Amino acid sequence: MTGRLIGVGTGPGDPDLLTVKAVKAIQNCDVLAWFAKEGRRGNGRGIVDGIVRDGTIELPLYYPVTTEIHRQKPEYVHQVTSFYEAATEAIAVHLDAGRNVAVLSEGDPLFYGSYMHLHVRLAGRYTAEVIPGVTAMSGCWSQANLPIVQGDDILSVLPGTLDEDQLLRRLRDTEAAVIMKVGRNLPKIRRALAEAGRINDAIYVERGTMANTAMTPLAAKSDDEAPYFSIVLVPGWKTKP
Amino acid sequence: MTGRLIGVGTGPGDPDLLTVKAVKAIQNCDVLAWFAKEGRRGNGRGIVDGIVRDGTIELPLYYPVTTEIHRQKPEYVHQVTSFYEAATEAIAVHLDAGRNVAVLSEGDPLFYGSYMHLHVRLAGRYTAEVIPGVTAMSGCWSQANLPIVQGDDILSVLPGTLDEDQLLRRLRDTEAAVIMKVGRNLPKIRRALAEAGRINDAIYVERGTMANTAMTPLAAKSDDEAPYFSIVLVPGWKTKP
Repeated sequence: MTGRLIGVGTGPGDPDLLTVKAVKAIQNCDVLAWFAKEGRRGNGRGIVDGIVRDGTIELPLYYPVTTEIHRQKPEYVHQVTSFYEAATEAIAVHLDAGRNVAVLSEGDPLFYGSYMHLHVRLAGRYTAEVIPGVTAMSGCWSQANLPIVQGDDILSVLPGTLDEDQLLRRLRDTEAAVIMKVGRNLPKIRRALAEAGRINDAIYVERGTMANTAMTPLAAKSDDEAPYFSIVLVPGWKTKP
Repeated sequence: MTGRLIGVGTGPGDPDLLTVKAVKAIQNCDVLAWFAKEGRRGNGRGIVDGIVRDGTIELPLYYPVTTEIHRQKPEYVHQVTSFYEAATEAIAVHLDAGRNVAVLSEGDPLFYGSYMHLHVRLAGRYTAEVIPGVTAMSGCWSQANLPIVQGDDILSVLPGTLDEDQLLRRLRDTEAAVIMKVGRNLPKIRRALAEAGRINDAIYVERGTMANTAMTPLAAKSDDEAPYFSIVLVPGWKTKP
């Protein structure tokens, strides 16, 4: 009998936003795998600190250092692909030995999660299950008490890496938007929001639902410093009473 | 001391997809409010069956019967607005008496949830908190083991009520899409997906994560019967290995 692969959404950061199902899966797994930068513990692993059972085998998956290599460069693609293939085989060893492996994924596993790279390589070979989680964006708009979409609103989830023209065109053509991966793209995002006439609605949130979260109307944010995983929310529901 | 209003996301249907925070809020509230059709218990209330404490005051909020009235008609708007105002006051009575009121919201409260109508009316008068939940769409794509977005993908969340031209235009202009509120819009959604060349990627899911869920590739679904809350998923991640 081979083991079972479980992609576990950890939610946005607050450990109480783990689902009951995620807590059970983490407590019952034989092997707990998690992504992190070399030598660190990773945000996902931090979220589940209070619930990991003694005796659980921990399997850290350290991202390769790819700073300064452009994402479209073959060298980047090669390093990242090699990393996911090595991680796949490290997990397969445990699955072959009959051990159940839970892979932590911040937010929701199949929504931009690194877990997806392992899932597509392993789900054909082993029994695989995905436990959905509360997304970072849901954590952010809830913390901000910000109604995001209602009725027949369209929501556009946009990576901040889009060209300014693309961002502008899409912001002009949607009721609500969530802009992910803000980081160094913030000045461009600001310009697109201003041009689209939406800057005064936009809310900036970093580390949503975590102890060290910060949020502010974007127009009131006086610098352009932003962590990569910060988010900008543009609410819909224009007919709100 | 007035009570506290808490919008509680119940997740997509599986009771184990409640968050730990939602479970605590439901167990600790004085009053549990939930939306339903007249005389029914409502899906949200069903999800939390196993965890409601004895002695909790239950406050059902029965939607007015608006079948056959068009959503843009003044009569519809009047009935729905009156309903939300009456529900607001029914909750305010408890808050004024110092009782904490949890309002159940299927999925995630600020993402198309009925709770939003109460939140905007009460959050200025009382302390209000929103506990995010796993959305129906996350429940659906996880159950389907379907990677939905990765990397720089755009996700468009589209109501099935959009005109066919609008649907087509937006399906042609996004990596991934989730089409909500399928119901009687299914034939139109099929046509738009076929025209956009995406019909063979689309997955149809009804009652995602619930015991009586059903799902199928949309192209293999032989009828156009669909509950209102069914969902069509169109995955992105074209460069998937």
